[in-house]
Amino acid sequence: MPAQHGARGQARREEIVQAAIEVIAERGYRGASLAAVAEKVGLTQQGLLHYFPSKEHLLIGVLDFREQTDADRGTVTVPMTMATTEAVVEANANRVAIVRTFSALLGESVTEDHPAADYFRVRYRRVREAFTAMLRREWGDRLPSGLTPEEAAPLLIAIMDGLQFQWLHEPESFDMPAAFRAFVRLLDPKAAE
Amino acid sequence: MPAQHGARGQARREEIVQAAIEVIAERGYRGASLAAVAEKVGLTQQGLLHYFPSKEHLLIGVLDFREQTDADRGTVTVPMTMATTEAVVEANANRVAIVRTFSALLGESVTEDHPAADYFRVRYRRVREAFTAMLRREWGDRLPSGLTPEEAAPLLIAIMDGLQFQWLHEPESFDMPAAFRAFVRLLDPKAAE
Repeated sequence: MPAQHGARGQARREEIVQAAIEVIAERGYRGASLAAVAEKVGLTQQGLLHYFPSKEHLLIGVLDFREQTDADRGTVTVPMTMATTEAVVEANANRVAIVRTFSALLGESVTEDHPAADYFRVRYRRVREAFTAMLRREWGDRLPSGLTPEEAAPLLIAIMDGLQFQWLHEPESFDMPAAFRAFVRLLDPKAAE
Repeated sequence: MPAQHGARGQARREEIVQAAIEVIAERGYRGASLAAVAEKVGLTQQGLLHYFPSKEHLLIGVLDFREQTDADRGTVTVPMTMATTEAVVEANANRVAIVRTFSALLGESVTEDHPAADYFRVRYRRVREAFTAMLRREWGDRLPSGLTPEEAAPLLIAIMDGLQFQWLHEPESFDMPAAFRAFVRLLDPKAAE
């Protein structure tokens, strides 16, 4: 039986990916086991392999799911704007498991031969290009602060990645969206008016 | 024999911590084993335990070592300034193993019951306070960009943490110190003149 096809198979795959997000958030990718994911969804490990033939396939499923969710929510739109970027940060503040999974994977990805290293390297290039184009659409070749879009794009990514770590360590007291809005005011002091 | 005392014991401890930094940079903390660290320095695992009685003790040794190195190099001075903070970023661009270790630990620390979670939570509070005080000494109660020192401090930390991930994934092509200087110009547009 081709368990991985059809609407029912798709729903099952999403259920497995959700379980994997929880397990990685708890233990990191290196500490996560297929057995733990299978147990969470009531499958045998062999049953799980029908949907994802290896741990690496499941990891890719998790990373794709995160981007797909953003697209479904309309929080990532084409073309992106600063407003939709702010909306992503606000959405992230309400989905701690997926942010924790992403941050744990980002950290692990700098260790040797990590299966997500290529994903993050390619993703950084792609996001820097997309943010550069977005910043140029918003402000032209110079931001109000004097930076070029090329200079501001890596800072925008660093702020998003970096604030998540501070927020994950103090989710109750650290206001991530407010900190992000302060950064937007740095890019464009007039945005505060 | 109290192997952990005296100048020779101190030198041995530093050698072990250096080996641990390399092992954690390669495998992450959860993937690192005391056996691998012991092998790197030519000790038995039992011999290693004379210096560090547990893996957690060794982890604390690694985290302390990083701050001690900054103090020894004079890259972290009291009182800190924006110039010494820039010097830390430049120093980091020349010590990939310790930055990789720190970034891998930061990532892992958001997973459940991680032994470094408390360290990072306390460290974030302490560094936010220290940066707030430093920014106030540099610019008073308002930065040239209009932000308060309290608003700018978490952004400064996020930029430093976040840029390290982009740099670790493309150490040859990503200019971390230049990106950091662009952020300094956001805080103070006049710094560019």
